[in-house]
Amino acid sequence: MTGVSRKNINEILTTEGLDALLVFGLPNIRYLCGFTGTDGVLCICGNETVFLTDSRYLEQAQEQVNADRVVCYKNKLHGISALTKELALQRTGFEAGAVNVPFYQELLGISETLTWFPLNKQLESLRAIKTEEELVYLKQAAALNEQAFRQLLPQVKVGMTERELALELEFELKRLGGEENAFDFIVASGVRGALPHGVASDKQLTSGELVTIDFGTRVNGYHSDETVTFALGIVDRKLRQIFDIVLEAHDSAIKAVKAGISIADLDAVARDLIGRKGYGDCFGHGLGHGVGLEIHEYPGVSSRSEASLQEGMVITIEPGIYLPGTGGVRIEDTIVVTAEGCDILTSIPKQYQQI
Amino acid sequence: MTGVSRKNINEILTTEGLDALLVFGLPNIRYLCGFTGTDGVLCICGNETVFLTDSRYLEQAQEQVNADRVVCYKNKLHGISALTKELALQRTGFEAGAVNVPFYQELLGISETLTWFPLNKQLESLRAIKTEEELVYLKQAAALNEQAFRQLLPQVKVGMTERELALELEFELKRLGGEENAFDFIVASGVRGALPHGVASDKQLTSGELVTIDFGTRVNGYHSDETVTFALGIVDRKLRQIFDIVLEAHDSAIKAVKAGISIADLDAVARDLIGRKGYGDCFGHGLGHGVGLEIHEYPGVSSRSEASLQEGMVITIEPGIYLPGTGGVRIEDTIVVTAEGCDILTSIPKQYQQI
Repeated sequence: MTGVSRKNINEILTTEGLDALLVFGLPNIRYLCGFTGTDGVLCICGNETVFLTDSRYLEQAQEQVNADRVVCYKNKLHGISALTKELALQRTGFEAGAVNVPFYQELLGISETLTWFPLNKQLESLRAIKTEEELVYLKQAAALNEQAFRQLLPQVKVGMTERELALELEFELKRLGGEENAFDFIVASGVRGALPHGVASDKQLTSGELVTIDFGTRVNGYHSDETVTFALGIVDRKLRQIFDIVLEAHDSAIKAVKAGISIADLDAVARDLIGRKGYGDCFGHGLGHGVGLEIHEYPGVSSRSEASLQEGMVITIEPGIYLPGTGGVRIEDTIVVTAEGCDILTSIPKQYQQI
Repeated sequence: MTGVSRKNINEILTTEGLDALLVFGLPNIRYLCGFTGTDGVLCICGNETVFLTDSRYLEQAQEQVNADRVVCYKNKLHGISALTKELALQRTGFEAGAVNVPFYQELLGISETLTWFPLNKQLESLRAIKTEEELVYLKQAAALNEQAFRQLLPQVKVGMTERELALELEFELKRLGGEENAFDFIVASGVRGALPHGVASDKQLTSGELVTIDFGTRVNGYHSDETVTFALGIVDRKLRQIFDIVLEAHDSAIKAVKAGISIADLDAVARDLIGRKGYGDCFGHGLGHGVGLEIHEYPGVSSRSEASLQEGMVITIEPGIYLPGTGGVRIEDTIVVTAEGCDILTSIPKQYQQI
């Protein structure tokens, strides 16, 4: 665990008056102790950290995990019960968002002297400020996007289906060492471009269409996320016009990023610009989201946010315009917030491109 | 919703004395109403079914969903709150395993006249008996396994890494139309064969090793799951011996399958055989698990089960022997239980094969 994380957790323990925190979510477990398997619980108390896992992962945990002890359980509830007794825990916080109701009910039955405190909001920003090491992986993941996309572009042809395009892109990313798709790739061509979540379909690409590709991969658990919209042949003036507006909104928002700006204000930079051009109703989603060990993580970047950007946060900037029955445009980069502005992690050129 | 599902849900409502059931988990939502998106809630009450989703999925839901009404929400909690008021729900069950603690706490705050009943065990067997339509997809997914593996085998060579092998298999499956990997493929060669969960690594395949490949894909949401162990060149006598024992355990268990047998007894067929040969301590996991819209679903097939097999259940049969420092063998098929035995869905030959 890094010193900063330990300090953050200790602050939470002190503020809430807790003996310990039990971490259940795999992204937070990975972040706090390095474990990459799929089953375990991390217990952090004042003077000790203990990682619990099942026998399948014991060897892996002993190699990977940065904790004072690794303990093996046959049954997770029994493992937790034994540990809480051994450590004589009374007021115990737990990562509530990663625990479902039946398991919660079982936790409540462990002991009468133990009180469970669900922590949710208190943990949401735990991973928001990225370390240098995390930025290295995020940059590597972004670099794979660019290499794969460069390989893909010459293969894109009229008549190819969206699904074929998505599959080629996935294969390129994985050949280059990408771990797994960051999400179901969106390939939305022509009128399908009006669907913000138009996952790749069997529709063939046609000349005169805009094609929106939203994709990403993972390196050492860290995600890339990027959206490119390009033209296949010559497109209608209206489509070109909305492309230019979205690009301007995207560029303006990126220019406005710096530590200290309120997230709602940042969202407004892009939203107001699109609104002034007459397309305010056609940008129905937030401007972006945090990216890290999860593809969507804190902070959400929308008009509803009450937070401000801080140095070291990594977020997407992805305005869009969607015209039902006509088509759509979205342009997205992933950036890291700096004191005076931002560094753009993703590197595929976003200018208008006709192929 | 099929008549059978509706009948099962109505029985749960009656038994528990509930006005309605709220379904939150995507597999159950897909099963009960056909929705394939990633956000929604299905409300089933005595005389009406209502599907709630957000604006991204409204169009898709209106096309896909088998429900009396589709309603769009901006915020899931508000959507649920409005619906429970409209329907004047009082005693309301919900799929507890798919709701985390913070959302549960929000549900509890919706209304003072509404009582929430967490349902968990009551729902676990909902999808256990497969319909003819489900079996079609499960068979298609299994057939893709066989085709992809046949394409793969000539490419397997000494010096290739486990990861390269896993990637080639994935690409073949996806070229053939497989939707997504059923799980992170296991490719465990040589001593790594002793790891039941040895996901593909950068280790190169070497002559004289056994190679265990555990893989599967998805068709229309339904999974395939199959494990093949083969020899690369001539292997040590001991490895050949454990292969023969595992195959015998696998074949014996499959022969023992039929509607009515207790699952613990079925597990014992394979476990006792392996035990009699002296490897009882080297088979540390259960014999198998149910397969369907989830890769692991009810029923678990282990010595701890208290259930019996029923006609139409689909389960894996996957005994293994793992010898730390030496290697391992696992052999797995997916089968559907019939009145008098079973049909094997997976079709890759499981006999000893040296390549």
